[in-house]
Amino acid sequence: MAADAASFLALYTDFGSDDPWVGELKASLWTIQPQFKILDMTHAIPSHDVAAGAFAVYRGSRNLPPWTINLGVVDPGVGGPRRPILVITENSYFIGPDNGLFSFIYQHDPVSRVIHLTSSHYFRQPLSETFHARDVFAPVAGWLSRGIDSAKFGDEIEDFVRLPVPVDKMVGESLVKGEVMAVDRFGNLITNIRQSTLEELSQKTGKTKFRALVAGHEMPFVRGGGYTQEAPVFALVNSSGLVEIACCASAATEVLGVGKGKDVGVMVE
Amino acid sequence: MAADAASFLALYTDFGSDDPWVGELKASLWTIQPQFKILDMTHAIPSHDVAAGAFAVYRGSRNLPPWTINLGVVDPGVGGPRRPILVITENSYFIGPDNGLFSFIYQHDPVSRVIHLTSSHYFRQPLSETFHARDVFAPVAGWLSRGIDSAKFGDEIEDFVRLPVPVDKMVGESLVKGEVMAVDRFGNLITNIRQSTLEELSQKTGKTKFRALVAGHEMPFVRGGGYTQEAPVFALVNSSGLVEIACCASAATEVLGVGKGKDVGVMVE
Amino acid sequence: MAADAASFLALYTDFGSDDPWVGELKASLWTIQPQFKILDMTHAIPSHDVAAGAFAVYRGSRNLPPWTINLGVVDPGVGGPRRPILVITENSYFIGPDNGLFSFIYQHDPVSRVIHLTSSHYFRQPLSETFHARDVFAPVAGWLSRGIDSAKFGDEIEDFVRLPVPVDKMVGESLVKGEVMAVDRFGNLITNIRQSTLEELSQKTGKTKFRALVAGHEMPFVRGGGYTQEAPVFALVNSSGLVEIACCASAATEVLGVGKGKDVGVMVE
Repeated sequence: MAADAASFLALYTDFGSDDPWVGELKASLWTIQPQFKILDMTHAIPSHDVAAGAFAVYRGSRNLPPWTINLGVVDPGVGGPRRPILVITENSYFIGPDNGLFSFIYQHDPVSRVIHLTSSHYFRQPLSETFHARDVFAPVAGWLSRGIDSAKFGDEIEDFVRLPVPVDKMVGESLVKGEVMAVDRFGNLITNIRQSTLEELSQKTGKTKFRALVAGHEMPFVRGGGYTQEAPVFALVNSSGLVEIACCASAATEVLGVGKGKDVGVMVE
Repeated sequence: MAADAASFLALYTDFGSDDPWVGELKASLWTIQPQFKILDMTHAIPSHDVAAGAFAVYRGSRNLPPWTINLGVVDPGVGGPRRPILVITENSYFIGPDNGLFSFIYQHDPVSRVIHLTSSHYFRQPLSETFHARDVFAPVAGWLSRGIDSAKFGDEIEDFVRLPVPVDKMVGESLVKGEVMAVDRFGNLITNIRQSTLEELSQKTGKTKFRALVAGHEMPFVRGGGYTQEAPVFALVNSSGLVEIACCASAATEVLGVGKGKDVGVMVE
Repeated sequence: MAADAASFLALYTDFGSDDPWVGELKASLWTIQPQFKILDMTHAIPSHDVAAGAFAVYRGSRNLPPWTINLGVVDPGVGGPRRPILVITENSYFIGPDNGLFSFIYQHDPVSRVIHLTSSHYFRQPLSETFHARDVFAPVAGWLSRGIDSAKFGDEIEDFVRLPVPVDKMVGESLVKGEVMAVDRFGNLITNIRQSTLEELSQKTGKTKFRALVAGHEMPFVRGGGYTQEAPVFALVNSSGLVEIACCASAATEVLGVGKGKDVGVMVE
């Protein structure tokens, strides 16, 4: 692992930013690896909502530099029997609790190994019972970035926790089904329908023009931000490679009256 | 441009901090220029509100180190025909969309050049259609900071977009008129009346004591934070060099019942 | 002071994150000490609430690296006669206004010296009247970190402002009394009862099992996050070394109907 590449550390937590936890976490990271470039991807995952966190980790990690260390912390079972883990994919690391937080990663990314973190001499001492992000995940991230071989942190496991996650899927020959996973600050609806699935649809049908369907509304796909389009509500492939329903003038979530969990379809025109 | 001076990069966006965009933007910046000291000036500009963003960029950039690169992103037309630009003043850089976001800078700072960013080999590839902050503005900021000559990024233009912005002005011999541009966290009213305009007023009248007028109230100017003053509401020149209406005990916006857009006057006593 | 150790700089302010102040403060810090690792501990202290700030500084600074420079800014008297100070304890620095903001530190940490910051050639020039965090505290932090002897910043004082702060205390032989100081993002109640006081209780009574009492409810102490416990509400010693009342399924503050200021007791079982 190149030293430079390893220096990106991305945080996804349910900590908010009013309490001292993010600061303590960064102190723990920089104490071991002063070179870390720390990216606050989000600290606004709803408290203890592992499913929402799983999507946030997936969505946020699509476009980070190779070998970024992604540190995910939605950890209601901290101090209990749940295991701390390191997940290695073809070009990224994920560190956090083994509670399903990385289920989207298991689903869509090529996972090469999952390691149960047991080598406690790499942990912060004394080890608290309620803040393993600071005391376990952060120090392991630091040592990993400094070149410690991943096998030194513990044994590989195969029975890591996979939660069922909503996956986009082809239905018949000309339709992809998915759902709204999140609503962003602009009121846009972020879905789980991937660009790669649309490409599959194109290959099957030989067509490249799509329409989206949400709550009885049909809308065109546009290129660009679409804010100059005539259609009041439209679909696009966003900067994370996911289908998004957006709106020129106001929030799509309000115009359509739909939010998280709503079914979305994409079909060829 | 000295390497050190160039390492400050200030962000002004309407991204909020719950979505992954600020993190992705920083990854893009640090990938090219690991030396960047990134300053989160604000991510709370109201969505797509270019006028509010224009004032936020102006207000935030008054006191930053020379040759700070200011990256402004309120970009409803992303992916459309609006141009990406680099603005060079006598001692600062501004990068962002050509939609009027830098109109206060054009109004008050000595602009030496505006460049239309067209040299796409400096952009992130593949270029997304909805996230030019990450894919265009950030990489250009990185290369600029690394010493690439600004002329290499594209041609100089003169027809950049200037929005009309509210400017403080002398009325007659003894009055300056302006308006409330923003309300800060403490409920203070931030106006567009500049210290330099008050100095002009002093020179014209030979007087150095002023009173402020807002919504039928008259109030004295104080030195210091004023929190020990007798006057319940008072005016001062704030740390950005702008006239501000503040209050000892509570929020001036509530005490006076006024907010953004309200007329403010300053006259000699 | 080792250069490395000195590079941690922790911020505790009532600035929020929407206005440009935190960005300007960091620019001021990094201009003098580019090596600073800046930790945003909190910017959400209620406006001008020195007492809440005093607890935030105490709580946040329990676990930072030795010789971290803690910069606290809740400063309603800025520009008035209140003094800027540097507090030196056995292993940390605290810089801010002399208005009682460090009262918890005076109470619980071994303070070796308090210095009135008067050497204005270390300040930012021109000095504003309303933003001493940027113009006084930050530059002094920078020069301190660069090795300037603390005595050079001004004279030692003994009459620094101590506000009375709520301190946990032994009552009789088997009870510790304290109160709820803050409610965290998860709705947990953070008290002022220290682990060290519980250890004292254990030594006096020879017992190591405790129960907490809040608003007529009795609850057990648990180890670990406790989220797998049977008790719906429970107590634990948190990662800051303070007793905390938490809840598996929801917010303790709601389940118990109590918040800041409420009495809390801990007794041996």
